[in-house]
Amino acid sequence: MNFDILTLFPDMFRSPFAESILGKAIEKGLIRIAPHNLRDWAEGKHQVTDDAPYGGGDGMVMKVEPVVRAVGELRQRTPGAKVVLTTPQGKPFRQEDARRLAREKGVIFVCGRYEGYDERIREAVADVEYSLGDFILTGGELAAMAMIDATARLVPGVLGCSESAASDSFSDGLLEYPQYTRPAEFAGMNVPGVLLSGHHKEIQQWRRRHQLARTLRRRPDLLESAPLSAEDRRQLDRLREELDAEKT
Amino acid sequence: MNFDILTLFPDMFRSPFAESILGKAIEKGLIRIAPHNLRDWAEGKHQVTDDAPYGGGDGMVMKVEPVVRAVGELRQRTPGAKVVLTTPQGKPFRQEDARRLAREKGVIFVCGRYEGYDERIREAVADVEYSLGDFILTGGELAAMAMIDATARLVPGVLGCSESAASDSFSDGLLEYPQYTRPAEFAGMNVPGVLLSGHHKEIQQWRRRHQLARTLRRRPDLLESAPLSAEDRRQLDRLREELDAEKT
Repeated sequence: MNFDILTLFPDMFRSPFAESILGKAIEKGLIRIAPHNLRDWAEGKHQVTDDAPYGGGDGMVMKVEPVVRAVGELRQRTPGAKVVLTTPQGKPFRQEDARRLAREKGVIFVCGRYEGYDERIREAVADVEYSLGDFILTGGELAAMAMIDATARLVPGVLGCSESAASDSFSDGLLEYPQYTRPAEFAGMNVPGVLLSGHHKEIQQWRRRHQLARTLRRRPDLLESAPLSAEDRRQLDRLREELDAEKT
Repeated sequence: MNFDILTLFPDMFRSPFAESILGKAIEKGLIRIAPHNLRDWAEGKHQVTDDAPYGGGDGMVMKVEPVVRAVGELRQRTPGAKVVLTTPQGKPFRQEDARRLAREKGVIFVCGRYEGYDERIREAVADVEYSLGDFILTGGELAAMAMIDATARLVPGVLGCSESAASDSFSDGLLEYPQYTRPAEFAGMNVPGVLLSGHHKEIQQWRRRHQLARTLRRRPDLLESAPLSAEDRRQLDRLREELDAEKT
């Protein structure tokens, strides 16, 4: 799968994908991550990519022409590639968006800088606008990196068998259950006995209950859309009673 | 302000903060970004930082001892530093969290890898757990980078006068208004006439109306907590009617 990135700071992308899981995926040829300097599509001696906003105001606005020219050229290289604008005004990026992008042949990320994009960039080239979250970055580069990482690890073959994506948070709509590894006791903190018991069914039940409890405490919003069994719902009713009892 | 990062991949941090606004802030000594290899605090010849989960299951779990030792040492170097765990199970990171962190003397980020943390890491060292969003990354490094970027740009002196943080999306609880720059006409797409008019009051009204309209269309959830004037509310009522009319 091809990831092309249009940015004013292509060098930012040098180190984050050089090692670990995605580094190996690049080596194996499963994914390609190519940052491009937007300035290469700007005209004139100074290769200007920004200009003052019409109507006045602070800051500079990213010009439409270089982006349209660049996207046109990159689209020819990967026909059918989806064009993603990274912007705080976009749809908040979620795991289902990573899943959707991972089915594409290629994605072209346009990374904003300055105070924002000329509005016509949205109209002329964007297939979708994604926001990394409700916070402001100095530019869209780190947002693109995170979206590339979340997407690339879903491309078949990228994760090894030992790193299965199936038990991730959100893959079943809930947060993960608590995990423990050696030592069994650390600074007075012990691993729950059931996890040392070897009773697989009890371990499974403990994990599911704690998964539900953690999601209820930390992210009750996720429970509205998570697929839940009848037993899960009974469990949740009991957990809600416990929570209410704590509060009073 | 000090940003310390505990990670198994310190080299990932080499390029993203080397240039642009944060690169300059580092040069000026306004911020310091120091990645540390967690392995340096692991024991034994193999400096193991992960182990199999108690109770069985795929994947490896990050061990508690190296993290506790490392955080203890880094906390001595920056007394009062806040310890942030990056994890999909944490509170979704928002602009108000960046503002809160920017008031600290230092932040120590612990970046997860493998299937997750030994639960006792949360109890023993974490002041707060933040999630970048509802998606899964190959590790917490890109999450830490984004949180550092969002936080560091709020440290006094980091943004120049031309890059004021005041007109950002979310700084007033709404999305930004549409921006345009030269040329006035591109591929048949024109800049709205009012922005070329020079009438400051009309421009201001146009921008506020479009800011409200964009937020209503794209992120109506933000309107619940945004500070709105009586005129904003009248405007929103009109915009809601227009939206309803479009739908029918």
